[in-house]
Amino acid sequence: MWSSIDKTVVEELSSIVGEDQVVFGVGRVEGYLLDETPLPIRPEPCRDVVVVKPASTEEVSAILRLAYRSKIPVFPRGGGTGLVGGCIPTRSGIILCLERMNKVTVDVDNMMAEAEAGATLHDLIEAADRSDLFFPPHPGDEYAQIGGLIACNAGGARAVRTGVMRNYVRGIEAVLPTGDVLRLGGKLIKDNTGYDLMQLIIGSEGTLAIITKAFIRLYPKLPFSITMIIPFDSRSAALKTVPRILRTGIMPLAVEYVERIPIEVSAARLGLEWPCKEGEAFLIIILAEQDEEYLYRVCEKLLDVCVESGSLEPLVAERRDEQDRILRIRSEIYTALKPSMVDILDVTVPPASIGLLMDKIDEISRSYNTYLPAYGHAGDGNIHVHIMREEGWDTAIYDEIRDKVYSVTLELGGVITGEHGIGFVRRRSLLRFSHPIYIDLMKKVKQIFDPNNILNPDKLLP
Amino acid sequence: MWSSIDKTVVEELSSIVGEDQVVFGVGRVEGYLLDETPLPIRPEPCRDVVVVKPASTEEVSAILRLAYRSKIPVFPRGGGTGLVGGCIPTRSGIILCLERMNKVTVDVDNMMAEAEAGATLHDLIEAADRSDLFFPPHPGDEYAQIGGLIACNAGGARAVRTGVMRNYVRGIEAVLPTGDVLRLGGKLIKDNTGYDLMQLIIGSEGTLAIITKAFIRLYPKLPFSITMIIPFDSRSAALKTVPRILRTGIMPLAVEYVERIPIEVSAARLGLEWPCKEGEAFLIIILAEQDEEYLYRVCEKLLDVCVESGSLEPLVAERRDEQDRILRIRSEIYTALKPSMVDILDVTVPPASIGLLMDKIDEISRSYNTYLPAYGHAGDGNIHVHIMREEGWDTAIYDEIRDKVYSVTLELGGVITGEHGIGFVRRRSLLRFSHPIYIDLMKKVKQIFDPNNILNPDKLLP
Repeated sequence: MWSSIDKTVVEELSSIVGEDQVVFGVGRVEGYLLDETPLPIRPEPCRDVVVVKPASTEEVSAILRLAYRSKIPVFPRGGGTGLVGGCIPTRSGIILCLERMNKVTVDVDNMMAEAEAGATLHDLIEAADRSDLFFPPHPGDEYAQIGGLIACNAGGARAVRTGVMRNYVRGIEAVLPTGDVLRLGGKLIKDNTGYDLMQLIIGSEGTLAIITKAFIRLYPKLPFSITMIIPFDSRSAALKTVPRILRTGIMPLAVEYVERIPIEVSAARLGLEWPCKEGEAFLIIILAEQDEEYLYRVCEKLLDVCVESGSLEPLVAERRDEQDRILRIRSEIYTALKPSMVDILDVTVPPASIGLLMDKIDEISRSYNTYLPAYGHAGDGNIHVHIMREEGWDTAIYDEIRDKVYSVTLELGGVITGEHGIGFVRRRSLLRFSHPIYIDLMKKVKQIFDPNNILNPDKLLP
Repeated sequence: MWSSIDKTVVEELSSIVGEDQVVFGVGRVEGYLLDETPLPIRPEPCRDVVVVKPASTEEVSAILRLAYRSKIPVFPRGGGTGLVGGCIPTRSGIILCLERMNKVTVDVDNMMAEAEAGATLHDLIEAADRSDLFFPPHPGDEYAQIGGLIACNAGGARAVRTGVMRNYVRGIEAVLPTGDVLRLGGKLIKDNTGYDLMQLIIGSEGTLAIITKAFIRLYPKLPFSITMIIPFDSRSAALKTVPRILRTGIMPLAVEYVERIPIEVSAARLGLEWPCKEGEAFLIIILAEQDEEYLYRVCEKLLDVCVESGSLEPLVAERRDEQDRILRIRSEIYTALKPSMVDILDVTVPPASIGLLMDKIDEISRSYNTYLPAYGHAGDGNIHVHIMREEGWDTAIYDEIRDKVYSVTLELGGVITGEHGIGFVRRRSLLRFSHPIYIDLMKKVKQIFDPNNILNPDKLLP
């Protein structure tokens, strides 16, 4: 078995990227081993690894040629913001850390960013802003890196209006396990040149190729925005309002659903107060438009729909700081729940079935006498269900609950993951809840891209 | 070699779909052999074929099981509106005609259509309309069928705002060559369950699987629209205006570019007159919005940008019949040019490079002393260049011109096809203008889906 202390490999890596860009030794590699996966489910990382930090596509290619030849596992690492252990090294191997490849340039005429894999979402947002442009989706933590966002087809709260990463990526440069560089797409709106291997690589979680660069579509800014909290007495009243809003032609930037207990826990953690005294179930709706007058017209129409659907008194935030405060409370829920959490799920159903799904989750919750806080992206049917720690429970019970949540999701025409992907921790579930022919085709696809199985082994494929 | 007169195969097909749904014999199959590919480049169809018309996914599956077992080529056929010979049978085999599978239902709450492969674009548009919903893109001829539109990832004039077919397809049911049925995605906005094989099948031109059904996202109607013709003295003035418009945040439904000669030929063919006396180069811009007042504000802003960019007097059509007349003239160009046409290209470059591309095409045109009419989807960098018939020229010269157009396109960061795909006629070009590693991966992908090479042989893969 290859080991990080194999001197010739370390020497060869040093000769590719420079000695100071190679990190190894227990203790020194510690900061490169984990992601945001909750402790109870995350795999124990293998510490017998070398971290290597290339500065260019040529260096990535040289590293992969070496790894391919010597059959050394390679674990690509972005911002480490994943929730399913997708970048945790599970074997002795190389951690390919892309943080030095962080250039972003903007082509204003084509409204496209050219971003290296290690640039953060924050870098991309800032670069677009400096060019008076805008990256519409907001796929989560701003310290996520572009390569990871694309490899995991990140989603986030704005998919209801603007879609997920896949909809914005127009071209990629990716290095195959052999070291060969593939360039697919470009600064293009249309491309029908053969099989769309770019789409296959998007969402492949680092198992088919290492994405080194991407062309990402930008849009003009939406300078005017309003954030609203719409309280309801009941979950069903809140959730039934969502399709009604969307059918009017209103296109909110985000439609989030939260309930009183988790949102108050989150607010308290931030030393803030949740501003709605009334109601148990809330829609947080962001509107953003090009035109201020139009924004107000849309806002009025939206409030009418909500009142007709039985909402309580809405809270309308127009000032930037007020809007930010609401979104900070919403964003903090995961962190607030994390210490007592076993797992965060991201099941997704047809949007109109969210209410049904949550009722079924309540039934599961009651039958196990546990609390399963659930909230999420109501406009796109994507709900984060949290499995919480209970005194005296073992893995088998948590697994049983997860399987039950997945089963009711599938019965409603849904899927086990809408955002987070499979990573390390969902492989058993993928196998259990997928058709064997689909699994077989995936394995064959993996085989043709990565015959030696060096790229992110133990991930995605069951 | 298997032949259509093989009695047992015909009998077996009849037992699957019923005797009256199996068509064979020279003369009787004639209506199923061609598509819209110009005569000079289209392959000679093989007439030794059996046309079979299944009514269900189960029947498609049974037909493919038979074909797989007996290694019989299968040519899927939709509306026959393709321009690259993608559905023309080039060997003895089965023509799988999906026209009987034409059901469309609309799920209003989820704003999704469930459409069978043989439903036409027209059927989909009508079904959406009956539910007070709207299918935003308009990927070409309304008698194209859903299966073909997805298999070819059809584009059209509205990609600038709404994207191509790929952006609307949320789930598919597809039958593999073995007869196994694969169901991918669903009525879902988000899905990150493993490799996105649905995206791989979209655009695979019937070579990987037979699409039998799809879930297609719909949107609320855009009830208010305006169509404008903006004349300019020169091509460069017209084309430079396009990125300026898009950067203001105006989102036209379509931005088409046409020049005087082809548009007048087209108008004359329809017995109409092109309504602009001034100008040589024209942008046809469609605006459509939810809100009438906002539409007028956008229209004003747009006209300001055009005037600042040096446009001549714009023509603004608000009445439905006036708007339709302009679009009919635009749509007729292909038919008007077809009798004297050798090939219609659909090269695509970064949108801001369209002007450069057209200047380079003019250079090619001058150096061969031939007219290469070009027009197209200016908002998405997709230009239709027509190679016209010239007295005494042979295939070699046409091929040379096509290769030159492709070369200048690639130099500008573009691709040889943005819309029409590879089909039969572009395979040589795909091979010539693609990286060998990409071609190799495509062949391996084909191999894992279709090891016996029965699905649409001689198409897409060089």
